[in-house]
Amino acid sequence: MEYRKIKDELQDDHVVASDIESVKGKSHTVASSNIAMATLGVGSGERVNWKRKGVVTCALTILTSSQAILIVWSKRAGKYEYSVTTANFLVETLKCALSFLALTRIWKNEGVTDDNRLSTTYDEVKVFPIPAALYLFKNLLQYYIFAYVDAPGYQILKNLNIISTGVLYRIILKKKLSEIQWAGFILLCCGCTTAQLNSNSDRVLQTSLPGWIMAIVMALLSGFAGVYTEAIIKKRPSRNINVQNFWLYVFGMAFNAIAIVIQDFDAVANKGFFHGYSFITVLMILNHALSGIAVSMVMKYADNIVKVYSTSVAMLLTAVVSVFLFNFHLSLAFFLGSTVVSVSVYLHSAGKLR
Amino acid sequence: MEYRKIKDELQDDHVVASDIESVKGKSHTVASSNIAMATLGVGSGERVNWKRKGVVTCALTILTSSQAILIVWSKRAGKYEYSVTTANFLVETLKCALSFLALTRIWKNEGVTDDNRLSTTYDEVKVFPIPAALYLFKNLLQYYIFAYVDAPGYQILKNLNIISTGVLYRIILKKKLSEIQWAGFILLCCGCTTAQLNSNSDRVLQTSLPGWIMAIVMALLSGFAGVYTEAIIKKRPSRNINVQNFWLYVFGMAFNAIAIVIQDFDAVANKGFFHGYSFITVLMILNHALSGIAVSMVMKYADNIVKVYSTSVAMLLTAVVSVFLFNFHLSLAFFLGSTVVSVSVYLHSAGKLR
Repeated sequence: MEYRKIKDELQDDHVVASDIESVKGKSHTVASSNIAMATLGVGSGERVNWKRKGVVTCALTILTSSQAILIVWSKRAGKYEYSVTTANFLVETLKCALSFLALTRIWKNEGVTDDNRLSTTYDEVKVFPIPAALYLFKNLLQYYIFAYVDAPGYQILKNLNIISTGVLYRIILKKKLSEIQWAGFILLCCGCTTAQLNSNSDRVLQTSLPGWIMAIVMALLSGFAGVYTEAIIKKRPSRNINVQNFWLYVFGMAFNAIAIVIQDFDAVANKGFFHGYSFITVLMILNHALSGIAVSMVMKYADNIVKVYSTSVAMLLTAVVSVFLFNFHLSLAFFLGSTVVSVSVYLHSAGKLR
Repeated sequence: MEYRKIKDELQDDHVVASDIESVKGKSHTVASSNIAMATLGVGSGERVNWKRKGVVTCALTILTSSQAILIVWSKRAGKYEYSVTTANFLVETLKCALSFLALTRIWKNEGVTDDNRLSTTYDEVKVFPIPAALYLFKNLLQYYIFAYVDAPGYQILKNLNIISTGVLYRIILKKKLSEIQWAGFILLCCGCTTAQLNSNSDRVLQTSLPGWIMAIVMALLSGFAGVYTEAIIKKRPSRNINVQNFWLYVFGMAFNAIAIVIQDFDAVANKGFFHGYSFITVLMILNHALSGIAVSMVMKYADNIVKVYSTSVAMLLTAVVSVFLFNFHLSLAFFLGSTVVSVSVYLHSAGKLR
């Protein structure tokens, strides 16, 4: 469960960082080739955008999928009694450090400009605490929802995030999806849920009204945090993403520090900050930090919809890899769900608005 | 099980008959209004086609759905030990009689024309035994497949019919579906299967190779019979459908007579033709005959794809009605499958080739 919880936090988390170096490098090569190709009438800028979008999306898919494999691995290896809030705090700290590292390199290579300067106006910074605050609130709610649904039921209800992200993406970012893409998005939610079905899944239908309300509120909080992060990151497209991430993660650290005090103060005070840490815990923190960076990249260069597709496909990839690694048996429901998700991915691309 | 078997036979059966009267009546009113509207440039012919298509499709959906409800009702009422082959023979006989009755009325009203004359050339008649022969062969195979899969597993494998119908529709009738419609068709198969999932469904994945081969052969036979019937019925569009049905059903009777001899000779010889018949058996025979007529209408005025959608939606309708009639509990898998089927219906219509 612990691993799962960090995972949740990170999967639907705003994040950012230092891979930026490589992206920066690419955009340089591109700048010069742009000029050459513009004379040929080739939309190379567009092509580079697509390539960058593809790279960050693949990175997110692979990282998310290996995240889940680490979870399975850790479960096999036995239970680790570390405190989740300290791990989350370290993830935020690592991301923050990586963003700062990336920035120092950029300053060295390009000099300090208006777009990569760390200091910003109050007006710009004041929005950055909001996503971190929303996640903190969502994670606190998570402790209460288990009074109404069991853990596997909660995993199923979490697919409501897909719908809430789509709806809030439409309402808040005012971006349009075509009808075919909406159809694909509904299918994505159905397919992911179908793939997770097991013999006890029907119990989720007996969830009481307060349980449903909490699940919907949590889905809305998570969707809103994602969409809001995208809005912040895209508001000033020329702003270096490391600056934006730095601020996001600073507040991420602050709010996770609050979570440590609220949830794990006694454990940390008595057993120490790093109690229960192991090699696998370190690997997971590293993986979460990198996934976080990838999510931020996807927010900057693609959008929340791509992020949702990416993490959903990752879930299926994980199951397939687990067949080879852990001798998992795939259920018929998994095959059906995966097919529905695959068709959904196709529809998202076939249904693009022209 | 018996009821189920008749149902299978009829659901994927070619059929036809006497509702034709009402359709004929409609096309008359239409003929005169056509002339009036042609001057206004309104595509009223097209509109009438749509209306006719809609009416026969709704009729098929409602009849198929009430078929399944009769099955549940009969199961609740206890087991009926009648022989399925005699019931199938009576269904064919009833359809044949209804087609003939419809024809005599048409002859009286319109006189005998080239299109409604019962006698046809050998070349035209020689194709009519083929669908009936295919169904006989498929039904005989059905006795052997149960050596490899259990009955619930067979219900799941039967969804392969959806795919085989789509593929053969494309290959034999050379009609095109758009990519979006193909996506919808794959989803229809996944959605129907998902809606039927239960805790034992995974056993179907352990089906041995001979079991899979038989299931695929049966799906191909059933799909081929449907597509072949459509080809026969549509080959001469002006030919009155009652004539076409009359010949289909005459051979249907003949092949079902063979089935009685092969499968139920002893039972019929010892206990009589009507042994085990009850009020509900009569209702089911009536329902099957009318559904058969509706299927034939759908083949004439729409196509196999519409037929498959219609019977799939009927399956879902049945479940919903059963909640009220029999206090059925719907599973989460059912909700997910129904949503996928609904999206599939939308995609079939949204993806129409222009």
